[in-house]
Amino acid sequence: MARVGIIGIGHGVFGRRSDATVQELAFEAFRLAVEDAGLSRDEIDASVIGSVPEYHKQRSLAGVVQEYLGLNPKPTWLTEVACASGSAAIRTAWMAIRSGVHRVVAVIGCQKMTELSTPEILALMGRVGEVQWESIFGTTFPAYYAMFANRHMHEFGTTREQLSQVAVKNHYYGARNPVALFRKEVTLEKAGASEDVSSPLQVFDCCANADGAACVILADEARARHAPKEPVWLDGMGCATASMSVLRRPDLVGLPSATEAAAQAYRMAEVGPNDIQVADVHDCFTIAEIMAYEDLGFCAKGEGGRFIADRRPYIGGKVAVNVDGGLKAKGHPIGATGVSMTCEIVKQLRGEAGERQVPEAKIGLTHNVGGIGQYCFVQVLRKD
Amino acid sequence: MARVGIIGIGHGVFGRRSDATVQELAFEAFRLAVEDAGLSRDEIDASVIGSVPEYHKQRSLAGVVQEYLGLNPKPTWLTEVACASGSAAIRTAWMAIRSGVHRVVAVIGCQKMTELSTPEILALMGRVGEVQWESIFGTTFPAYYAMFANRHMHEFGTTREQLSQVAVKNHYYGARNPVALFRKEVTLEKAGASEDVSSPLQVFDCCANADGAACVILADEARARHAPKEPVWLDGMGCATASMSVLRRPDLVGLPSATEAAAQAYRMAEVGPNDIQVADVHDCFTIAEIMAYEDLGFCAKGEGGRFIADRRPYIGGKVAVNVDGGLKAKGHPIGATGVSMTCEIVKQLRGEAGERQVPEAKIGLTHNVGGIGQYCFVQVLRKD
Repeated sequence: MARVGIIGIGHGVFGRRSDATVQELAFEAFRLAVEDAGLSRDEIDASVIGSVPEYHKQRSLAGVVQEYLGLNPKPTWLTEVACASGSAAIRTAWMAIRSGVHRVVAVIGCQKMTELSTPEILALMGRVGEVQWESIFGTTFPAYYAMFANRHMHEFGTTREQLSQVAVKNHYYGARNPVALFRKEVTLEKAGASEDVSSPLQVFDCCANADGAACVILADEARARHAPKEPVWLDGMGCATASMSVLRRPDLVGLPSATEAAAQAYRMAEVGPNDIQVADVHDCFTIAEIMAYEDLGFCAKGEGGRFIADRRPYIGGKVAVNVDGGLKAKGHPIGATGVSMTCEIVKQLRGEAGERQVPEAKIGLTHNVGGIGQYCFVQVLRKD
Repeated sequence: MARVGIIGIGHGVFGRRSDATVQELAFEAFRLAVEDAGLSRDEIDASVIGSVPEYHKQRSLAGVVQEYLGLNPKPTWLTEVACASGSAAIRTAWMAIRSGVHRVVAVIGCQKMTELSTPEILALMGRVGEVQWESIFGTTFPAYYAMFANRHMHEFGTTREQLSQVAVKNHYYGARNPVALFRKEVTLEKAGASEDVSSPLQVFDCCANADGAACVILADEARARHAPKEPVWLDGMGCATASMSVLRRPDLVGLPSATEAAAQAYRMAEVGPNDIQVADVHDCFTIAEIMAYEDLGFCAKGEGGRFIADRRPYIGGKVAVNVDGGLKAKGHPIGATGVSMTCEIVKQLRGEAGERQVPEAKIGLTHNVGGIGQYCFVQVLRKD
């Protein structure tokens, strides 16, 4: 099978970026990635933009970004699958290269979440659940994940404190990530005594909206082997879906799309969950990270609460999870998030993660969920 | 080079479809395509959705469509590049198959344009031009194309009557297409005496918003050769971009993205403009079709007006253009349009186009423009 390598990464600062338009955010990450890859811009054959267009005032976002990056007349298009849009863009670029159509493709995940007013944002987000039968009855994002949390607590005895332990870990690492939105630690007491959002989820169980962009540059095997830095290979690529309507799901304690996408990625990379040393998973809510431990096979179903309580997802534990701070502390500019995850794993496998470095990491994973699990993309990344 | 074949097509009726949600429209086209391909749904490995999400009340459209088509847990994602979103979806599926990742992929272009109010639609459309420096000064879609028309008239002597002749042709053929929005002919007098929209463009120079969906099913060469109908091959695939800002374009009498995308597609298919017997081109405005004749090389730059005046794009002329009615008479459900174009060319190459049939058509082309030419996708399709 033709291998596809990541030869460059670039990551802007996530946060309230009123200093920059979305195309300027895209450029910030793109410039870093091009430098990192040691490329001239002319060597890039195409770009793919991961973003959720409706949060921006500008329509036709890919066109604006392509012009601003100076990439005309090269091809571009945008991929959208809610919060997994960045991973769909990477999957598209990966296929473009494997197909032999392009040799070098830039993937830019970019998102401004603060252009619209808060009521406008809430109205948009509310409609990511199934509109005809679910969100019309008030199932916002936090409400869906609160259902998952309640059910997980009921079936497996997961505790309120275990939810907070996820937030504590992610803030601990986020405090050490210079591109994170929240660069400060939080105590277990504080994380468990914040305001209710949708019971049992409190403020500290929810990730925060942010503006931001991230970029990865993919190349075919021959080109990747000539890059200045050792390439990181996209060896396992999984993508699966589940019903939008949670009422049609078999249960509420995991995401079937994640289990299926992980199985595909492990099979393609010929590895298993025990081989993964570092992972970025989709912790839009603390319960989502606990379910991800289980769905990815890091522990058995129902044991995710104990997994965090025993500090198994810390550096030095079984597998280091979200040691960039996760969506929770790094912030969640939805279209950028998948690309940001891949950047972090590349950084880890290269040994460039500084005080957050997972020792001797050779195999890593990303797990990027769209919506409430109607989509999930899993990547297994490896260095030679 | 690995060939990718189209083994099934399905096309719903375009129009004000208050009878159906967007996922129901998608299903209508999908069901026809699956039947046409003689497939069981289980044989479909993935889907790609072409749509512009912001026109729908439902967010996360790919997820809703995937569930409604019964395709969970297969992968899906949405592609967006304004009015070329459907062609970006086909390009994505084509690469997915060429890469060996998937064997059979369903592409669904679907769009409701009538869910939002007219002022909401106009506000969205206004922002498809460059927001910071152009659309803020009032450059709506008709205004951009009116500039193109004025400049074309000034430089080449193109006439108001020639614009109307495009509308007359497209309505003539639209009247013979059972899935078209406007199934009636229009006289030259009537087409040239309609209300001004943005001078010199009048009502009959503009395509109409419509709801609708279309579906094509793509397969790898081996699978395509076992389909019940003779496959139509996607042999030339071009995609190019130009600056969003028309003020940064070299001129206003053509679309540089179209010239470049056409060159790519011709080169890949090893054909030239004189080999094309039937084409579906992006006539969002009558002037756009005239520029397309030139950009695609059907005639020289500046001769597009005479080309229509001489009835060269009619059946029996040099190349039959938009004999399904085009965007003008068929209607323009933006995300569906690119897929609809491909459906029509497949139908023509199969000899299934009834009274609109181009005799002995073996090579056809689609030309799908996004926005005001910031994107263009060109396909060369062929039967063996």
